[in-house]
Amino acid sequence: MRFEFYNPTRLIFGAGSLAQLGKAARPYGKKALLVIGRGSIKRSGAFDRAVSALEEAGISIVEFSGIEPNPRLSTAMRAAELARKESCDMVIGMGGGSVMDASKIIAALVFYEGNPKDMFMRAGKIARPPERALPIITVPTLAATGSEMNCGAVITFDDEKLKTFVRAEVLYPRVAVADPELTLTVPRDHTAYGISDMLAHVAESYLNAIEGTPIQDRFAEGVMLTILEWGPRVVENGNDLEARTQIQWASIVAWNGWVQVGTEHMLPVHMIEHVLSGLYDIPHGAGLAALLPAWMRFAARFRPQRFAQFAQRVFGLSANGEDKMSLAMKGIEKYEEFLRSIGCPTRLSELGIGKITEEMLFHWAEESLKVNCDAEGRLPGRPPLRKEDIIEVLRMAL
Amino acid sequence: MRFEFYNPTRLIFGAGSLAQLGKAARPYGKKALLVIGRGSIKRSGAFDRAVSALEEAGISIVEFSGIEPNPRLSTAMRAAELARKESCDMVIGMGGGSVMDASKIIAALVFYEGNPKDMFMRAGKIARPPERALPIITVPTLAATGSEMNCGAVITFDDEKLKTFVRAEVLYPRVAVADPELTLTVPRDHTAYGISDMLAHVAESYLNAIEGTPIQDRFAEGVMLTILEWGPRVVENGNDLEARTQIQWASIVAWNGWVQVGTEHMLPVHMIEHVLSGLYDIPHGAGLAALLPAWMRFAARFRPQRFAQFAQRVFGLSANGEDKMSLAMKGIEKYEEFLRSIGCPTRLSELGIGKITEEMLFHWAEESLKVNCDAEGRLPGRPPLRKEDIIEVLRMAL
Repeated sequence: MRFEFYNPTRLIFGAGSLAQLGKAARPYGKKALLVIGRGSIKRSGAFDRAVSALEEAGISIVEFSGIEPNPRLSTAMRAAELARKESCDMVIGMGGGSVMDASKIIAALVFYEGNPKDMFMRAGKIARPPERALPIITVPTLAATGSEMNCGAVITFDDEKLKTFVRAEVLYPRVAVADPELTLTVPRDHTAYGISDMLAHVAESYLNAIEGTPIQDRFAEGVMLTILEWGPRVVENGNDLEARTQIQWASIVAWNGWVQVGTEHMLPVHMIEHVLSGLYDIPHGAGLAALLPAWMRFAARFRPQRFAQFAQRVFGLSANGEDKMSLAMKGIEKYEEFLRSIGCPTRLSELGIGKITEEMLFHWAEESLKVNCDAEGRLPGRPPLRKEDIIEVLRMAL
Repeated sequence: MRFEFYNPTRLIFGAGSLAQLGKAARPYGKKALLVIGRGSIKRSGAFDRAVSALEEAGISIVEFSGIEPNPRLSTAMRAAELARKESCDMVIGMGGGSVMDASKIIAALVFYEGNPKDMFMRAGKIARPPERALPIITVPTLAATGSEMNCGAVITFDDEKLKTFVRAEVLYPRVAVADPELTLTVPRDHTAYGISDMLAHVAESYLNAIEGTPIQDRFAEGVMLTILEWGPRVVENGNDLEARTQIQWASIVAWNGWVQVGTEHMLPVHMIEHVLSGLYDIPHGAGLAALLPAWMRFAARFRPQRFAQFAQRVFGLSANGEDKMSLAMKGIEKYEEFLRSIGCPTRLSELGIGKITEEMLFHWAEESLKVNCDAEGRLPGRPPLRKEDIIEVLRMAL
């Protein structure tokens, strides 16, 4: 176990914490680019409360609205142009994962010279990582991606329809203000997709981790157990603030690095899913729910012991006499059942992208290798996936 | 659940990571005060390797050796004077918890004006927390306190024999270089005391936490399970690098805030133990081992459900039909058995402080309230402890 860990984001968490946004932002300047999506936070009143908190702290606001659910590079570039023109001191992203990711990218684009696409992963590497960014502050309104407390961001190159990502230390938010009250108005379906997303962050990294990290295994299992317990409650009653709180906290630790540190995890299913949400604009969490069980059934053949541990520790299945493989399969069944029980699709045919042909599977497999691949042209994972393997996984998910 | 979390320490972890010390320190200047204990790292050769790594990075060294096992304020003041005189840019603490804690305090004392004692906890508050410190780098040589990745430090006022502490954001190390190879030479008894210390950090905070933090409960249980599994291996064979690695990682997460975040935990037993190690210079981990089982038996009466959960989840005891209280007691028995199995004392009479009189118990109880107490003069904890309660706990530990 060898690693470097660094996460300097200050997290202000809890119901009512939005009121602290002004105080939290004050050390970073006097003028903020406030980045939002398509206006739902204006209808809920959260936007006005954020603006008041900032103005009371003497921070003036330049608004940029209209970040798409799968944010586009061209949109981020327009926002960065505005931040430059207005000489903003910081970027505040208030919204879901898309808005927070776009805000990070905007903060870096303000200083980035040359081709903006060089900032992102392509063919297994980032040509020129960003080295500077405006201070970033995140205010999540959805419990899902955990973007509020990590240094990653996903973007779609609109001209190529390529969905890719960046990870860089300069993209750590200085502060994340996570107020579960802001998530009370998230509709049932997107609440469920958020749960699918956070659960996938933990499950996929856990099942693609090295052996020999017992603490991180326990952490991952603990987060999954908590999501399995509290997820259904928040889907059933979106007004349950206690459930919203537990689930939002789960979404943050699912992807702030604490669970994965030292595990050398990989995320092949995320890479495949990005192709789908990049091409068809489906919610990331829905796409993950449709793909992950199929990938699990494929990958369990290679690591039955790890999947058996997953079945036992996360779903409480008992080994008694059963062989690893059948135990593994039962755990996967339980995972899929859970996703269905909260209303997630678990098949590609349920994603509303029409008739799916063999040619489409072939194309998706090729596209997924454009972002990340190893020296042998395979998608990194345990096991690494050749193009044929990806097609097989996709076929299993039909 | 409401909290603020912030831990900006960069952790470089793993066997061989000492070689990265120079690169890690370079951003913070050209001259370091290198603080060490009483020389065991010189005999092992680790000191020379650290010095080489620093010199290769162009960093010159001012050595300060002789930090005591329970470090004294007067010693830290002398070291701070040296750092000022030599215009050091940073403080590097290479040693156990005592050396790292002293280094943090030295780094703050360099800038602190007025009475240095005002920087520390007394009667439940810190009069004037430090607001500035030289950059701090920690290089642990013992897996125990977790001081390498947190912002706390313990010190003894030598004139009063009062052992107290400080916690302040400026005391977060910029970098912690944690190389398990440096712990290979720790003798068996101190290895065991370190295990007692890290386990106590998790167990005591878990048993003094609020309800309603399911993820943190699971994290705590996961760290304790890992310590129970790997602790005996490292005591049995100190040369087992894999076991040293797992145990050192456990010691760091036990006390870097990840396990306790949001739990509003308290540490009454730590406060009582500090009196003993302050007065009699016994190892902190040994003192904790002697006190914690007694406190557990006292406190379980007030929270049988929590102690029963501890018994079930950490020691795998089965509830079947048993009442909470007897389950709780069995878990405590297991905890004590574990400590004995690795060679820790679990009674005050085993600490080598001679005959213990009622007057001494009375005096210790009074002393423990000098550092921390609530408005009603009780030691904060769940439950809060009146002086009579502390005496009862001490009597139970005889």
